[in-house]
Amino acid sequence: MTQTPQPNLLIVGSMALDTVKTPIGEAVDALGGAADYSSVAASFFSPVQLVGVVGSDFPVEHLDFLSSRNIDLTGVQIVQGGQTFRWSGYYDFDLNVAHTLETHLNVFADFSPTLPDDYRAADYVFLANIDPDLQLEVLNQVTNPKLTMCDTMNFWIEGKRSALLKVLERVDIAVLNDAEARQLTGTLSTIKAAKEIQCIGPKVVIIKKGEHGALLFHNGRHFSAPSYPLETIADPTGAGDSFAGGFIGYLASKDDISEKSMRKAVVYGSVMASFNVEDFSLNRMRTLDSKQINSRYQAFRDIAFFDAWSDAEV
Amino acid sequence: MTQTPQPNLLIVGSMALDTVKTPIGEAVDALGGAADYSSVAASFFSPVQLVGVVGSDFPVEHLDFLSSRNIDLTGVQIVQGGQTFRWSGYYDFDLNVAHTLETHLNVFADFSPTLPDDYRAADYVFLANIDPDLQLEVLNQVTNPKLTMCDTMNFWIEGKRSALLKVLERVDIAVLNDAEARQLTGTLSTIKAAKEIQCIGPKVVIIKKGEHGALLFHNGRHFSAPSYPLETIADPTGAGDSFAGGFIGYLASKDDISEKSMRKAVVYGSVMASFNVEDFSLNRMRTLDSKQINSRYQAFRDIAFFDAWSDAEV
Repeated sequence: MTQTPQPNLLIVGSMALDTVKTPIGEAVDALGGAADYSSVAASFFSPVQLVGVVGSDFPVEHLDFLSSRNIDLTGVQIVQGGQTFRWSGYYDFDLNVAHTLETHLNVFADFSPTLPDDYRAADYVFLANIDPDLQLEVLNQVTNPKLTMCDTMNFWIEGKRSALLKVLERVDIAVLNDAEARQLTGTLSTIKAAKEIQCIGPKVVIIKKGEHGALLFHNGRHFSAPSYPLETIADPTGAGDSFAGGFIGYLASKDDISEKSMRKAVVYGSVMASFNVEDFSLNRMRTLDSKQINSRYQAFRDIAFFDAWSDAEV
Repeated sequence: MTQTPQPNLLIVGSMALDTVKTPIGEAVDALGGAADYSSVAASFFSPVQLVGVVGSDFPVEHLDFLSSRNIDLTGVQIVQGGQTFRWSGYYDFDLNVAHTLETHLNVFADFSPTLPDDYRAADYVFLANIDPDLQLEVLNQVTNPKLTMCDTMNFWIEGKRSALLKVLERVDIAVLNDAEARQLTGTLSTIKAAKEIQCIGPKVVIIKKGEHGALLFHNGRHFSAPSYPLETIADPTGAGDSFAGGFIGYLASKDDISEKSMRKAVVYGSVMASFNVEDFSLNRMRTLDSKQINSRYQAFRDIAFFDAWSDAEV
């Protein structure tokens, strides 16, 4: 009997030390970065091959934690004498808006991602938030992916628009938040924005709306996932990255990119984001287990249910 | 064979002539008001007994339209020589925010709702947006309602807080938008706000979130309904009233106030709101039919579906 090999999931993006203050408390030089958040969220579903860069100041216990989550660090460059990318910011009572205090690119300023040979055959590729030129370099190195997905942020929409458009022309899925989608397309309707992004290239567009859930646009159809009703959010940092990691980790684990699978994946992404914001940095991920994940997935079913449904409907 | 009598649905609230400008166009002295919007939306499910007041300037064709929708106008006072309540306002590109230009209470300044005798036995009562003292007067006149529900607005939360709290202590359901819920309770979390309102009195709280759908809080459980993905909104005026009318009209038509029925009712309310905003004033309601309503209800099922469900789950 031949066993189907587990598909490979490659994630590239920022690895960071974050200093964050929220109305609930603060974290100083804590593990952060889009690639760290998304890889750890994905790792609950699938092994991950990580590509990123850190300085020699990056605490070894963070690397140990990532390794312990079944994340392959062969693709992580450690620049001796270099400083890790650092972001500091705060959230006021409107937790939807991150206020940046300082950004130090440090080792990211000269980073050029080089994929280890065994990463090039990756089946699933997530280009987490990072300079779109670096996202293109990664796309150029993977040989035959089944599914590629990119995230981005306002900084690149403003400063690297043409490189970002090239990325969007080549990926299968774009995942971004509602403000970014409207900014990218210059429209005030999130629905119109999603459809216009589909015209640029990605067949599938996912809009993250924070406390209002997430939308999936696929094949002219529309799926709306609720959010989990948290009364208290400790730290919203990394929610979108955890969402994207949970989403693509679930798809890779099932090796199924049908619309039906993607709808479930959006909910698993929402589950991971809802856990992530319960604590600072990646702390909630350190104690999370699959039983808790499945229990919250069931809670999402209960939150969204209003009439008898059958599998036949999608 | 005894036939179960159709339950009576009573709606009280403002009847108005609105002048509205939006990025799409404008309407002048058009049929509006919370009671008109909610009664017409409800009338697609159940006959309505309407309580309100207009001046003798209120066009007879509006009364004819309401009558044609199976809305009983016995409870509508027509003040000879009086002027109908008028509101004028505009929406910028953020269609969630109504900017008021002028409000003329006119005949509403001296209005005291008096229920016709056959209205007092109403089974379902919706106190649409109106002075909470008038809402209390109506509550004092109904004899044995099965279900009472109230709406309100920022103006009464600021100016008539203690009367509003008395209303909330006495109704079964409060329906309000997210900003109003947070304002009423002085909290920044919509989830916390809903739970605090339940502590004031209503067992059920419904939060309207416009383009982000609606939330139902019931028995310690939480239901999130999506919104319909409209690319263009002609006029958001009356969306919340149409939602509430569709919601309570559906409940009255089924004479079922179980949680399961309320979840479906939230979706029917969302369906009615989504149609209402497609045109100015109540114009879309003039051509709407039950086939279109049922077709959009099915679309909501498709939008929310992500996994096999059975009726057993709620």
